[in-house]
Amino acid sequence: MKLTAKEIESVIGEGVPLAHQIGFQVVEVHPEYTITRIPFNSNWIRPGGTISGPVIMALADASMYAIILATLGPAEMAVTSNININFLQRPKPEDLYAKATLLRLGKRLAFCEVNLFTGSDPALVAHATGSYALPGKGLGNEMG
Amino acid sequence: MKLTAKEIESVIGEGVPLAHQIGFQVVEVHPEYTITRIPFNSNWIRPGGTISGPVIMALADASMYAIILATLGPAEMAVTSNININFLQRPKPEDLYAKATLLRLGKRLAFCEVNLFTGSDPALVAHATGSYALPGKGLGNEMG
Amino acid sequence: MKLTAKEIESVIGEGVPLAHQIGFQVVEVHPEYTITRIPFNSNWIRPGGTISGPVIMALADASMYAIILATLGPAEMAVTSNININFLQRPKPEDLYAKATLLRLGKRLAFCEVNLFTGSDPALVAHATGSYALPGKGLGNEMG
Amino acid sequence: MKLTAKEIESVIGEGVPLAHQIGFQVVEVHPEYTITRIPFNSNWIRPGGTISGPVIMALADASMYAIILATLGPAEMAVTSNININFLQRPKPEDLYAKATLLRLGKRLAFCEVNLFTGSDPALVAHATGSYALPGKGLGNEMG
Repeated sequence: MKLTAKEIESVIGEGVPLAHQIGFQVVEVHPEYTITRIPFNSNWIRPGGTISGPVIMALADASMYAIILATLGPAEMAVTSNININFLQRPKPEDLYAKATLLRLGKRLAFCEVNLFTGSDPALVAHATGSYALPGKGLGNEMG
Repeated sequence: MKLTAKEIESVIGEGVPLAHQIGFQVVEVHPEYTITRIPFNSNWIRPGGTISGPVIMALADASMYAIILATLGPAEMAVTSNININFLQRPKPEDLYAKATLLRLGKRLAFCEVNLFTGSDPALVAHATGSYALPGKGLGNEMG
Repeated sequence: MKLTAKEIESVIGEGVPLAHQIGFQVVEVHPEYTITRIPFNSNWIRPGGTISGPVIMALADASMYAIILATLGPAEMAVTSNININFLQRPKPEDLYAKATLLRLGKRLAFCEVNLFTGSDPALVAHATGSYALPGKGLGNEMG
Repeated sequence: MKLTAKEIESVIGEGVPLAHQIGFQVVEVHPEYTITRIPFNSNWIRPGGTISGPVIMALADASMYAIILATLGPAEMAVTSNININFLQRPKPEDLYAKATLLRLGKRLAFCEVNLFTGSDPALVAHATGSYALPGKGLGNEMG
């Protein structure tokens, strides 16, 4: 069952606390990638002008979940296993976009990559990779 | 100039958007480590009972900043360069604690480690390592 | 079936190419951690005096495998899923040690932490975390 | 001063122990990326048929250094600061290629991305990101 951009946005807004609070939106869903966005908000700016690390990490994590939902359908029990994020440069005061792709969809883990950028600058603001543990039998309290 | 727990909490609450929103508190400051906490809040729970990844990541990042401030004083221009976080097990519905230490304090980068856990369970909920870029001349728009 | 230090060293020497070449040794096996080592070898030194990154990474990966074998017995089909390593300071020209612990032993993934150091310096040379995918049904060509 | 593929290969073969041992070759140098390779060698295969993690990590690290040398010229004092690598699928028994790009070239740190793959399979074998500390004044014994 293929979810639309609005359906994915709704699942994430309700299922991933902090995503809704930062204004997470699913802009485009393609077979190979999703484009998501958070609107510019001066509340998220730290002294010195950079966007708060936790805000960027929330966008990156929600974006990984978006490409997984776009690919698998309503996999609401999928949970983050690992995230690695490099912060590359201070973003301009604009909306922040994330393009997420699947590096590998395994039986147990889905590996994702996320490029984060503003609209007016080709250089990346941040880059993340990570994995989500996919639901399976006997997962219980563990995540892997 | 050594900052107290309350001063560090204030710098982070005002300087790291999302830290205040999740109720970030600095509990203890020691020469070698800091203990920080976010109170249990059912708003942060995802379907399935796990704490939202972005909430845990915000605590981890703010905790790294806490040990840096505890060690260096008011280094408000320090910014996250990299974070890697492994999510290990679903936490019990309790306050979530983070113990942060410095792995290495260099001239340009401070490397940190964070153990995340609830009070009643010795097993870790998550584990993070990462680095902060320390302020220096000519940093401009870059973070490294 | 508990493996001895020599048995673990043998499994890794034969089963993890490059471990033997760098002189990987299992020094101590404890219930909670393993101590492994590679002897100092000027062949591994880069211009500038630092140990080659690949040599340190090989020690870190083999050490994760050591604590997994020490805990699970002969789990020879366990494979590396993710490694994250921070290089902290140039080591002195001495044997390089690694202390590995399990952060979490799940059904599908074992998460490990490795501290790397020389004997005469308390400060870490490097620090790594990562995960191994544990053998399971239907793994086929995938690692997660 | 722009280095040729052969010159980069030589700097790495002599300057990064283990690169030469695994047969590291620089295949192509472009303004935006480098293609490097290690020949298939049954000595690097683990029981179960996968290439040894340390061999893949050595290729990833050497490839990051290759794109840095291709971009900056003979920056022989550049050292690895952090590497994060996800192992995605067991490679076919063929030569292993790596395509490395610069995510960000800062004053202090160069962030790189490496895609690792065999010639006959579009799916990635592994994916790595990381950073190199660039030479600067007062670096002394530290790497950041």
